Amino acid sequence: MAEVLRVGIIGAGGYTGAELVRLVHQHPKLKLVMVAAREKAGKRLGEVLRGVLGIAELSSMLLETFEPEQAEELARRIDVVFLALPHATSARAGKALFEAGVLVVDLSADFRLRDAEVYRRTYGEHPAAELLSAAVYGQPELHREELKGARLIAAPGCYVTSAILPLSPLLKAGLIDPGFIIVDSKSGVSGAGRSPGPATHFAETAEGLRPYKIAGEHRHVPEIEQELTLAAGREIRVVFTPHLVPMSRGILSIAYARAHAGVTPDACRAAAESLYAGGLVTVLPEGVLPDTLWVRGSARAHVAYALDQRNGMLLAMCTLDNLARGASAQAIQALNVSLGFPDATGLPEVAMFP
Amino acid sequence: MAEVLRVGIIGAGGYTGAELVRLVHQHPKLKLVMVAAREKAGKRLGEVLRGVLGIAELSSMLLETFEPEQAEELARRIDVVFLALPHATSARAGKALFEAGVLVVDLSADFRLRDAEVYRRTYGEHPAAELLSAAVYGQPELHREELKGARLIAAPGCYVTSAILPLSPLLKAGLIDPGFIIVDSKSGVSGAGRSPGPATHFAETAEGLRPYKIAGEHRHVPEIEQELTLAAGREIRVVFTPHLVPMSRGILSIAYARAHAGVTPDACRAAAESLYAGGLVTVLPEGVLPDTLWVRGSARAHVAYALDQRNGMLLAMCTLDNLARGASAQAIQALNVSLGFPDATGLPEVAMFP
Amino acid sequence: MAEVLRVGIIGAGGYTGAELVRLVHQHPKLKLVMVAAREKAGKRLGEVLRGVLGIAELSSMLLETFEPEQAEELARRIDVVFLALPHATSARAGKALFEAGVLVVDLSADFRLRDAEVYRRTYGEHPAAELLSAAVYGQPELHREELKGARLIAAPGCYVTSAILPLSPLLKAGLIDPGFIIVDSKSGVSGAGRSPGPATHFAETAEGLRPYKIAGEHRHVPEIEQELTLAAGREIRVVFTPHLVPMSRGILSIAYARAHAGVTPDACRAAAESLYAGGLVTVLPEGVLPDTLWVRGSARAHVAYALDQRNGMLLAMCTLDNLARGASAQAIQALNVSLGFPDATGLPEVAMFP
Amino acid sequence: MAEVLRVGIIGAGGYTGAELVRLVHQHPKLKLVMVAAREKAGKRLGEVLRGVLGIAELSSMLLETFEPEQAEELARRIDVVFLALPHATSARAGKALFEAGVLVVDLSADFRLRDAEVYRRTYGEHPAAELLSAAVYGQPELHREELKGARLIAAPGCYVTSAILPLSPLLKAGLIDPGFIIVDSKSGVSGAGRSPGPATHFAETAEGLRPYKIAGEHRHVPEIEQELTLAAGREIRVVFTPHLVPMSRGILSIAYARAHAGVTPDACRAAAESLYAGGLVTVLPEGVLPDTLWVRGSARAHVAYALDQRNGMLLAMCTLDNLARGASAQAIQALNVSLGFPDATGLPEVAMFP
Repeated sequence: MAEVLRVGIIGAGGYTGAELVRLVHQHPKLKLVMVAAREKAGKRLGEVLRGVLGIAELSSMLLETFEPEQAEELARRIDVVFLALPHATSARAGKALFEAGVLVVDLSADFRLRDAEVYRRTYGEHPAAELLSAAVYGQPELHREELKGARLIAAPGCYVTSAILPLSPLLKAGLIDPGFIIVDSKSGVSGAGRSPGPATHFAETAEGLRPYKIAGEHRHVPEIEQELTLAAGREIRVVFTPHLVPMSRGILSIAYARAHAGVTPDACRAAAESLYAGGLVTVLPEGVLPDTLWVRGSARAHVAYALDQRNGMLLAMCTLDNLARGASAQAIQALNVSLGFPDATGLPEVAMFP
Repeated sequence: MAEVLRVGIIGAGGYTGAELVRLVHQHPKLKLVMVAAREKAGKRLGEVLRGVLGIAELSSMLLETFEPEQAEELARRIDVVFLALPHATSARAGKALFEAGVLVVDLSADFRLRDAEVYRRTYGEHPAAELLSAAVYGQPELHREELKGARLIAAPGCYVTSAILPLSPLLKAGLIDPGFIIVDSKSGVSGAGRSPGPATHFAETAEGLRPYKIAGEHRHVPEIEQELTLAAGREIRVVFTPHLVPMSRGILSIAYARAHAGVTPDACRAAAESLYAGGLVTVLPEGVLPDTLWVRGSARAHVAYALDQRNGMLLAMCTLDNLARGASAQAIQALNVSLGFPDATGLPEVAMFP
Repeated sequence: MAEVLRVGIIGAGGYTGAELVRLVHQHPKLKLVMVAAREKAGKRLGEVLRGVLGIAELSSMLLETFEPEQAEELARRIDVVFLALPHATSARAGKALFEAGVLVVDLSADFRLRDAEVYRRTYGEHPAAELLSAAVYGQPELHREELKGARLIAAPGCYVTSAILPLSPLLKAGLIDPGFIIVDSKSGVSGAGRSPGPATHFAETAEGLRPYKIAGEHRHVPEIEQELTLAAGREIRVVFTPHLVPMSRGILSIAYARAHAGVTPDACRAAAESLYAGGLVTVLPEGVLPDTLWVRGSARAHVAYALDQRNGMLLAMCTLDNLARGASAQAIQALNVSLGFPDATGLPEVAMFP
Repeated sequence: MAEVLRVGIIGAGGYTGAELVRLVHQHPKLKLVMVAAREKAGKRLGEVLRGVLGIAELSSMLLETFEPEQAEELARRIDVVFLALPHATSARAGKALFEAGVLVVDLSADFRLRDAEVYRRTYGEHPAAELLSAAVYGQPELHREELKGARLIAAPGCYVTSAILPLSPLLKAGLIDPGFIIVDSKSGVSGAGRSPGPATHFAETAEGLRPYKIAGEHRHVPEIEQELTLAAGREIRVVFTPHLVPMSRGILSIAYARAHAGVTPDACRAAAESLYAGGLVTVLPEGVLPDTLWVRGSARAHVAYALDQRNGMLLAMCTLDNLARGASAQAIQALNVSLGFPDATGLPEVAMFP
């Protein structure tokens, strides 16, 4: 493998694409050599992402288009591709590039679900279902062994990451009743993407807090349930309540679960620390409650646990930056594992504060 | 009773005090004639509350101090007093003024709990426990009959209001399992009051979302449980999770409860509409989820219901403006009921949008 | 004239329309009886403006369309109309309704400029230039006499109001050099209207501060210059720099002007107090600098003055709520003057704080 | 010189200290080995700066105290010290460490002013005036030659940087009238530091925009004037108007100056590009106006120019991140120059977007 890998980003015009540009630029083993964005094709990256203006090699990069037929050609220019595309489009691009030998890191939902039928019910017919078995779910701490050497990585979504990180250790260790899980999640507005609309219009978002797609409607529910089922070794169903919060970045999820008798927050923390050793998940000490501000811009997620003694209800909490740990930084972390680098290679671990 | 009642506000220097000034000023039956604020005594109201500058009669009002010994004298100057004071201090002032014949509306927690022992465990020894039985809980829709003619009104807190409004109809109508209730609440920062501190410092609050005093630690839990117990006719315990959200005003609470078999959101809405007829609670129609932006500055609360069919979990939701419906506007609404006025008299019902 | 005037709002779907609904609803002399919004026609007001849900008479109002041919018919249903429409469309509607005998308050730019040629250069051909001489500029403190009995009122824009309120007293009193004026203005995002776009997308607006349409490009420059020319009695040109600030409501404008020798801030305050007596402009006392938070939701504007002694530069400052004093509340204030009511009739004067 | 320099941060508990921790941690030539914070001494860094929790080597660092007497001892442990201390305290610490042979980068105002008398009038008696001549002003693009090998670097303030970057090229090239300069600056709230107070209390800052310390009162005026005087070769006086804007990070400054006849924005851009070649200042192309969002978290500043043809007024604009380019990143950039590294070494150049 080359000393420095040549990287392409397809879908560089959105927020996860922008975050990939930021993170790849400061990664010592990766070099950005190709960017594509269909609607912005022909523009320079500096016109679409003003934050790179003045950095000559980035600012002047020409935004390309990419069609699956160009995969062979592109495979001669890049070693790794990040796909920040809408679902279905992403699967088609990913299949072509994977088959052309490019290491594919897909940030869409296309290769996350293991069951094509679940995919069909959630997103429609899968354009490349035959590859689902080749794809590895890109949650580095939970799928580390499979990720080593992986060539098709399905980077998880932000809500999903925030739900499975605090709950997986509890389910694996058998500390909670798997029959009852509520996940109440609050996300910053960047999670809704870069396309303007009434729900993300500043004047109707600032000072506005609201739930949406509740009661099973959000399409990340099957992905959450798949990963928790895997952790529990039995089928898990969750009540999932997403909210939009007037801030740009950050997710806080609190999962409510019934603790088995005698289970303490200490036991939960110990289970998490054991599971996440070597990764980029911080287990907050007793008495410290999470805050999205502490993870802004960082590749780290924070998890924390508390017990409501009066009701036997356990609160399993997680904060992360939805664009960093919840998307682009986690995708790079998974790539790091796949390539045999330490998880944190090239990634910001210290949050931008404030 | 006079055509227009003379009003005093003790504790006018804080946010609920400021909101009382705004609301009393536009109330056709009330006239503000006295303001007190211990630390700001001697200043003009316009120096402490810049929003009244230029309104001659308000701007020049002198902030006074008030000691219980002055109650008789003050009773000659005012008909109604609003107390926006810390607990304990409030009870002492309220007792003196109540006994001097002033109609007292207390916005502290002092007269909300019916059981002096519960008060003692939560706040310390009660300075005027003998008056607890005389006080009426100032939730107009739920205590309307007792409020008529009441002379000592305990205006409820913001979190409590947001929890009991969506749940009371369900408990009264027997639509949910009373043995299991989680209330996940998110509040704007003004709920933390006007005293600066690290938790409300702009740069550490903007872009920061965090839970606090979770797992039974928040001292409004006993008040929530008292009112829900009353509605249910049996003892209720809740898991309560407050959060601070980076916005100034607004609370969104989502209560999770197990619906009894066959219960539909329609049935929940019907129960709420029936209970809240004539009041200032809006029951949102099917498919409309609440948003704090829709109640900003308004005396109205919004409630909504949804059912997660896959899990049999009911979501009972409420939004309100923590300083308006959650505090000062609700206090005036309770006063309106006590005086025999329609609930909405002098109160803003249309939210400030955006 | 009827005891209570029947009001229609055409263009009720936008922010100034929403603010008119809020303000008309609490005005004792006005009753909202008709709302129109072309793209939302057929919906109920409660579907478009969620803040009125639960207020039966408002929530159920049907949004209509309005075409100029319907003016005669509409004139039988309403006494006053507020037009919150795009320019040109507004002039056509206004002309028809004015000629049908309705008192017209136009919030667009259509009747603000006295010179049809200036209008043409800024907005295009005027659809009803013959009415420009009949229209009265709706700045109540500066055009009070003309407004009495006016039947066609051109309510001023928000930036313009914030520029002319602090400067007019100085120009009228001859306190500054009229040959040099810079107006540096900062506006909240609601000023950009309710249509979503990249410039008002939450994630690209929060934490983002930017100038736009600077160096003479903003089309409110001719209106500012018209009114300042009127105040000065000679032609005035300004450098105008608008900014978008990450907040929903509020404008702060600071005008830089050269003070004539010996002119003090006290003299400026005296000139402003004299000019604005009886109106809704607060002149801040010495040492108090303005804050948009102090005027949020209020019909009042604040003006303030300071002098940089080292450079002889005077700072003439103004804050106002762009949707209230900068648009809808000022339109109602002008209507109040036209109808012979005190300026503040039915208007909120105490800001919502915080 | 060692391969990797050992770094200490004194005053690590504030925002510039936190930003230094973030930036030093990702710098390949620097290693953080010592942190001090008087009021937090004895705590672990992870307790004061939650964003480092989970990063073992940072989280567990013990916050020390530092007194000048300890300089010799500390000099054995560190090669470079960053001082993020209040003025006067900083000068005492800096003197001791400089004399003990440590390379000192001082982020306070103590070594920025060349004239001890100006310092005295602004801050009080200078505790180490004899070192003023040894100190180098740490603006890398404007003091590059002096910075090479410098051992006592006075890192500039955020407002000052935002004022001198756009104006210096114009003054050096003689493009504007040096007799008239207004600088209208708007800053995010983090610029006010980490100590809570009414002016930075969330509920009174969000939705609030206000000027402060205007008309010559702000104590950065002498520093701005010193550097502009240097650029112009003649004495410069400015009107300086700082504002607080409801966002955490970012400064936008617009300087108004009279362009000499025939001067175009192109000429201004050319002058800036020439002066800033090799540095970290981006000159925005024609038609692109700056936005603080494009520089958040970045070591780069953006400058832009526009001309109001009607008035001959030039607008010289700058955006930067007040904690990064305006403080900590610029301090590291200056250190890079002093050590002979390329300016951008170890610094984030791509802004965090959004």
